[in-house]
Amino acid sequence: MKRIPIETAAPYEVVAGENILKDAGAYMRAAGVAARKAFIVSDDVVLPLYGGAVRASLLAAGFQPYTLAFEHGEEHKNLATIEKILSTLCAAEITRSDVLVALGGGVVGDVCGFAAAIYLRGVKFVQIPTTLLAAVDSSVGGKTGVDLPAGKNLAGAFHQPALVLCDTAVLSALPEKLFSEGMAEAIKYGVIGNAAFFAALEEGRADTETVVETSVRAKAAVVKKDEFDTGERMLLNFGHTFGHAIEKLSGFTVSHGEGVAAGMLFACRYAEKIGFSEEKDITVRLKNALARYRLPAECPFTGAELFPAMAHDKKRAGDKINLILPKRIGRAEICPTPMETVKEVLSEL
Amino acid sequence: MKRIPIETAAPYEVVAGENILKDAGAYMRAAGVAARKAFIVSDDVVLPLYGGAVRASLLAAGFQPYTLAFEHGEEHKNLATIEKILSTLCAAEITRSDVLVALGGGVVGDVCGFAAAIYLRGVKFVQIPTTLLAAVDSSVGGKTGVDLPAGKNLAGAFHQPALVLCDTAVLSALPEKLFSEGMAEAIKYGVIGNAAFFAALEEGRADTETVVETSVRAKAAVVKKDEFDTGERMLLNFGHTFGHAIEKLSGFTVSHGEGVAAGMLFACRYAEKIGFSEEKDITVRLKNALARYRLPAECPFTGAELFPAMAHDKKRAGDKINLILPKRIGRAEICPTPMETVKEVLSEL
Repeated sequence: MKRIPIETAAPYEVVAGENILKDAGAYMRAAGVAARKAFIVSDDVVLPLYGGAVRASLLAAGFQPYTLAFEHGEEHKNLATIEKILSTLCAAEITRSDVLVALGGGVVGDVCGFAAAIYLRGVKFVQIPTTLLAAVDSSVGGKTGVDLPAGKNLAGAFHQPALVLCDTAVLSALPEKLFSEGMAEAIKYGVIGNAAFFAALEEGRADTETVVETSVRAKAAVVKKDEFDTGERMLLNFGHTFGHAIEKLSGFTVSHGEGVAAGMLFACRYAEKIGFSEEKDITVRLKNALARYRLPAECPFTGAELFPAMAHDKKRAGDKINLILPKRIGRAEICPTPMETVKEVLSEL
Repeated sequence: MKRIPIETAAPYEVVAGENILKDAGAYMRAAGVAARKAFIVSDDVVLPLYGGAVRASLLAAGFQPYTLAFEHGEEHKNLATIEKILSTLCAAEITRSDVLVALGGGVVGDVCGFAAAIYLRGVKFVQIPTTLLAAVDSSVGGKTGVDLPAGKNLAGAFHQPALVLCDTAVLSALPEKLFSEGMAEAIKYGVIGNAAFFAALEEGRADTETVVETSVRAKAAVVKKDEFDTGERMLLNFGHTFGHAIEKLSGFTVSHGEGVAAGMLFACRYAEKIGFSEEKDITVRLKNALARYRLPAECPFTGAELFPAMAHDKKRAGDKINLILPKRIGRAEICPTPMETVKEVLSEL
């Protein structure tokens, strides 16, 4: 079992280990969660799988448990779902001293976290990610939110969880496609800051606990320096600016992990095109690593097609956009770039 | 002109003075707002009155101004209005480095502030309150939010403005009923912490600038000690726990100011009933002060009717509720009270 401290204004821990889900309630008490009621927010796929075990652990730890499951899928990550959750919290008379528990993948964590951020102007919540993607990325760092018809994550808040519990047995049991999605983010941490980790992934030498621990430590180091995403944290968006555009253009038939994979490739090609990268075979190595986890090694869209979909990206500041480009495997940099330049380079990719 | 510093984690100023609205843009620049675009959020009553002057001042200060007005009234303080505003911000390509301007009363400030809190996980905003109630209360301290069908302010965030501009000429020109609503909050500050101010109000000796300045200083002192409303800030809820219940029971035909007025009277009668208050004529003096500003000196509901409407109050913590009760004019205290006791005492009022 691994414990990784996250040093934000309100610090907390990520606990990663095998079969820890059935002791969720005890871990919450040990982390200082003094709530009387614990309200599980999940979706209709995850709740039948793990809801019973978590609920039993909450009861055993003296919590009064409640449960709500919304329909799974990114299309339910919206304000209507938030309104439904808030109304149910109110009906259950959840107060500021109670706690929410996000049990599920990234959508559940984002939705439950945002509900926790705004219900009564903020209540505590705990993340129990059941996908590798959520475990290595979205459950840590406090970014919560929902989509609007106009774009992804346009409504949200920074709201740190009180605890994150990653059960590696749950993650290792994931269907291959879901597991691969998480590996896309793990590969990202390798490219932007850890060449040795990238090499381990490239060669298939990292087990699930190592993948989670190394990824979370990488994220924690960045979040510590920039909790509110005004500078260095943008590094974590490597592959995401292009990736979000790809997801959007596909009408969200491309998953987040696939989008990030294709987006990282785009960023590598962009960096090579403008002569930014110092290492010759970045794109080739990235393609190989992605292929090992059956992630897409090609982008279904041209650069010219991507550009309009990037116009509303949060990484924009005025007429510039902050591109995250790789210098070499193990180092990426934030490159403020005029939108005009981006358009020009993209038209040639 | 008065400048009152608000010492929150991100400090800012309240500027109160005559005819300062037409220089709003310049005050914003002086306060360090470096945005390129400034997006005015207002309602369909206020925008025609003051939108032109604010817009001109923004242009003169080098901002690129945008405007959105939603339908006035508490019934539009909901998530649907928030979604509409966020979509419009997105369409106008407002980025994290731009600024929103709340131009209006309490509903506009709460809605615009909440939109600013969650759009792209937080952008700056400026408050230009056009009602006395908003100037002395809701525009200061960072509480933002909207109502749900289940209750008032159930979805919200703490998000401090970058600046608050109170034009006393605008406030003095208010219809009498709207002006009185603000006086209910001013009287509140007198009862809970400033006997001299209460006496000035009781005798009609305070001008608008003094009312704003004294009220804002009182609020600032409490907010400084308890930005996130976990302790002393609850004092500001004097009259509000009962007041919200009264508003709710009336189907919101009773205004917030009237609700607070009636709620303060209820709290005084409650304090007298249980022998908490040390001063004999608190209720009489409060009634006289309220009557001077044509505020209700009677509550339209019985205590037994009020109780069920208090069950979802945010001041609840588990089985207790924090009542704010007056010891004497100039001093109120937070009294954690079992719901059962509240029910019992209320049944006799």
